Amino acid sequence: MTVHLVGAGPGDPGLITVRGLELVRSCDVLVYDRLAAPELVEEAPDDAIRIARDPLDQSAVNGLLVGFGRAGLDVVRLKGGDPFVFGRGGEEALALAEAGVRFEVVAGVSSLSAVPAAAGVPVTHRGLASQAILASGHDPRAVDYETLARAQGTIVLFMALANLPEIAAGLIEHGRDPSTPAAVIASGTTGEQESAVSTLAAIADAAAELDPPALVVIGEVVALSERLRTAAPSLVAAD
Amino acid sequence: MTVHLVGAGPGDPGLITVRGLELVRSCDVLVYDRLAAPELVEEAPDDAIRIARDPLDQSAVNGLLVGFGRAGLDVVRLKGGDPFVFGRGGEEALALAEAGVRFEVVAGVSSLSAVPAAAGVPVTHRGLASQAILASGHDPRAVDYETLARAQGTIVLFMALANLPEIAAGLIEHGRDPSTPAAVIASGTTGEQESAVSTLAAIADAAAELDPPALVVIGEVVALSERLRTAAPSLVAAD
Repeated sequence: MTVHLVGAGPGDPGLITVRGLELVRSCDVLVYDRLAAPELVEEAPDDAIRIARDPLDQSAVNGLLVGFGRAGLDVVRLKGGDPFVFGRGGEEALALAEAGVRFEVVAGVSSLSAVPAAAGVPVTHRGLASQAILASGHDPRAVDYETLARAQGTIVLFMALANLPEIAAGLIEHGRDPSTPAAVIASGTTGEQESAVSTLAAIADAAAELDPPALVVIGEVVALSERLRTAAPSLVAAD
Repeated sequence: MTVHLVGAGPGDPGLITVRGLELVRSCDVLVYDRLAAPELVEEAPDDAIRIARDPLDQSAVNGLLVGFGRAGLDVVRLKGGDPFVFGRGGEEALALAEAGVRFEVVAGVSSLSAVPAAAGVPVTHRGLASQAILASGHDPRAVDYETLARAQGTIVLFMALANLPEIAAGLIEHGRDPSTPAAVIASGTTGEQESAVSTLAAIADAAAELDPPALVVIGEVVALSERLRTAAPSLVAAD
């Protein structure tokens, strides 16, 4: 009887892990995120308790997991992407540890590379980017502009679409070249995927029509997407 | 008839994606890395052609993929971790694109978060790290010490074990606090997983007995592992 913190992957239900799907198929309780694919929620046994996480705050979620875990049930906490990359999996794991409830982390495919990949952008590429920075754009005042502007390689921003005008301007002010290639990929890896490709200076305008969830990628690797798309019909073209 | 660049995940064969395993099970040709789990190589059909990538250089691998793809075979290129995170997947994709061979990228679970997770370390954690930098330690003279030393959040270094004394010293010289918690996790997520936890100043000595493949993680998040391990018997304790 364990609480399993399972990564659902970036959106495409085929990108959950084999181990993660096994656990979903045999659980007593499934607590799932809005970003987890509905096809995966349907994989839980017919008599499993299914709970959507979204109306709940984080402490309520922690309480649920601890409660069901203590009751001896087999719980799957299905989280979008990877539980430990901008997933608050650490908070849920700590709550379980402090309550003495056994847990297991089952890593998932993070959006950080899968979503750019689905638009033909490798996060690292020899000669172009041997380094990548992942950051949250949720609070534009908390962004580490100094580092992001000067760092070599690729920048990947989560939850940055709503604040993209301010974030892009901040990066340019701190010294990032305004002509750096940039992309926004919305609903990446799903049938609704849409993307915009431009320069850092113009990306906020180019992506103005896109809706979250979206990932922002900034760096020379973005320029590879044009060359890759020509041969890969499964890659979604930019608008 | 397509060449599929498939991420095998970080080591544990259960961490391949559902889609990736399906493709392995139906391929005509499997070209696999040393770091892909042997259990996954065995999943290929009995009559599939299996080719170990390791004796070959990158241009020979590209040539093989193009050749088999042109011959109309269904090819799986099974790569450790994720093809587009320090995986040279971009180079193989470009070679295929330039040759006019159809390809598909199937993202995988990268070591970057799965390996720390298996030792009880979340890469991001509210209040401790809202940013992470991924870098290669393969060539210690090419490391962006300035950025890594000053950046907020977590540092994750791939292929850094052999050069860890020089890299840790470089980070401290450039201003990173020598008391920053640091971990090395070798053969993460497999039955052979071993880890060492210490400070940045002492991590190279603490990890001297470990063998590659190994991931280095530096940052306050490392300190969470002690608290998480108490409740998660599946997490491997540090030596």
